[in-house]
Amino acid sequence: MGRMSKTIVNCLPLTDAEKRDFMLAIADVRRPGDDIHLEFAGDPRQRGMMGWKASVPEPLRADATAVIGNIAPGECAQYPRLEWLQTWSAGVDRYLAPGILPDGVTLTNATGAYGQSVAEHLFAMMMALMKNIPAYARQQQDRRWHDLGPALTPSGATVLVIGTGDIGSHFARLCKAVGAHTVGVRRDPATPADGIDDMHGFADLDTLLPDADVVALAVPSTPQTRHLIDGRRLVMLKSTAVLLNAGRGDAVDPVALSRALAEDQLHGAGLDVTEPEPLPADSPLWAEPHCLITPHVAGGNHLAVTEGRIIAIALENTRRYVAGEPLTNVRR
Amino acid sequence: MGRMSKTIVNCLPLTDAEKRDFMLAIADVRRPGDDIHLEFAGDPRQRGMMGWKASVPEPLRADATAVIGNIAPGECAQYPRLEWLQTWSAGVDRYLAPGILPDGVTLTNATGAYGQSVAEHLFAMMMALMKNIPAYARQQQDRRWHDLGPALTPSGATVLVIGTGDIGSHFARLCKAVGAHTVGVRRDPATPADGIDDMHGFADLDTLLPDADVVALAVPSTPQTRHLIDGRRLVMLKSTAVLLNAGRGDAVDPVALSRALAEDQLHGAGLDVTEPEPLPADSPLWAEPHCLITPHVAGGNHLAVTEGRIIAIALENTRRYVAGEPLTNVRR
Repeated sequence: MGRMSKTIVNCLPLTDAEKRDFMLAIADVRRPGDDIHLEFAGDPRQRGMMGWKASVPEPLRADATAVIGNIAPGECAQYPRLEWLQTWSAGVDRYLAPGILPDGVTLTNATGAYGQSVAEHLFAMMMALMKNIPAYARQQQDRRWHDLGPALTPSGATVLVIGTGDIGSHFARLCKAVGAHTVGVRRDPATPADGIDDMHGFADLDTLLPDADVVALAVPSTPQTRHLIDGRRLVMLKSTAVLLNAGRGDAVDPVALSRALAEDQLHGAGLDVTEPEPLPADSPLWAEPHCLITPHVAGGNHLAVTEGRIIAIALENTRRYVAGEPLTNVRR
Repeated sequence: MGRMSKTIVNCLPLTDAEKRDFMLAIADVRRPGDDIHLEFAGDPRQRGMMGWKASVPEPLRADATAVIGNIAPGECAQYPRLEWLQTWSAGVDRYLAPGILPDGVTLTNATGAYGQSVAEHLFAMMMALMKNIPAYARQQQDRRWHDLGPALTPSGATVLVIGTGDIGSHFARLCKAVGAHTVGVRRDPATPADGIDDMHGFADLDTLLPDADVVALAVPSTPQTRHLIDGRRLVMLKSTAVLLNAGRGDAVDPVALSRALAEDQLHGAGLDVTEPEPLPADSPLWAEPHCLITPHVAGGNHLAVTEGRIIAIALENTRRYVAGEPLTNVRR
């Protein structure tokens, strides 16, 4: 094997201790004579902020063989030596578009870092809707002390989780922990998922919906999931059902959902993703009293633990890159 | 023993099947020759409604030896033969006031029926505040799609539960189930409580507050708990702490809390009880963006399971009353 020459540009907003972790990981696996440059281009002040921005100084772009960070897709062509791009997002659609990344560039993402954050947000939306908390928060603005009526409980509820990956599985575990029975729907029902009591395929969806107290969507972005929950399926729900969506916005037909909520066909809906995004100002969903909308924040770097997991994934892949091992979280 | 003559007026809103349960329970334990009348005076249409109303037909009042239901305290004098009053509430302050119940009348309440409902409501307030859901619900009214910043997580959080009875213990179990470490404070720290990892006495409160990510109050109504959380103690909290109150409203000093919230001394507060109630329209707490107020609804008959537990307590005590056994939930 020849002498290795690598330049890794790390745009994560790291503390000094975390920078040392990267340097030590490389020192552990580099072979004598390897020429490894590690450049820190992150801004530590972005820590705790949403939407980290990656900006790589122009002179470094010519040398970089690896970049950690969501650089502007249009700028990828400015990295002639690029071998590997590690994003801090889970979604990488923009880098997979034709003409963005040259052939031969390995793309890895931060899948797995966001499961806890998104699942907890979904779970908080569920609990809030069960206890009418969004309605109380709104009523509070009118300084009204008024009982809004019956509540629901997760204890003994049947929670149907559609999409049982990292997010769906974590959400199911939270629901089970507070007494729910969990039913999962995934493409391959023979593959179990942690937290799911009964697993089914998509073919069973219509028979499962009428028994669900909660329906939570955590499906990835595929053509098959567009308007998976449409007017026909909304009619199947219990009048006390809670619908949650944190996967892709267009998994729920927004027009059908508005109508179903207006007609009290279900107890409420919690949407962290919508079709389209941002939700247009004239959408009737904004004003539906039983609809809770959060602006695609469940999966942001809203928890310190999410930031820590992104850094851990990048650190492990940096070690593997220098050691010449296969990377994890490869998307192409 | 002489022949027993009892008239039980049952004001619970029962289904026919539940009425049969009461009749069967009596039939099981009555002795031959006993003269037991069971009168159903409830309105089944109140099922699922808040604030059940008990109205006993006038002719029955002269005969009733036992009443199940929260009759008007001022009317208790109209029951000359009354031996036993079973409330469907947990609170019985109004019946304990001097001159309300004649000497010799046994008073039992529905303590234990409300723990799950109150604890789940507290838990939902906690999750909602951690994920900024009240603020998103308010922002939704302006049709705004805007990220409100960092969230908090119950995973790994230290939850301090002040008052570890039925409600506090149930709340602690929910928090543990989603990954929290639970610390309890109760009068007798030698008595453990389900769901509490570490138990302390009230003397330790000041040393525990600075380490708490969540402080939940579920203390009963005693003079010692008035303004337990005052300005001095609010200053001790983490800036990311969540304060919850579902015990008695005056356990928190409302003026000090308004100031602490306005000065960002804590992340947020969730209050189901306030001082006084209803919260006056001019209270600054109504407009605090980090304060969530619900109008003392956590403990109402908001869950079907709560109604079921109230009925089960009344059924068991009815059986004991006819069998001549000591009643449960005796308050005097």
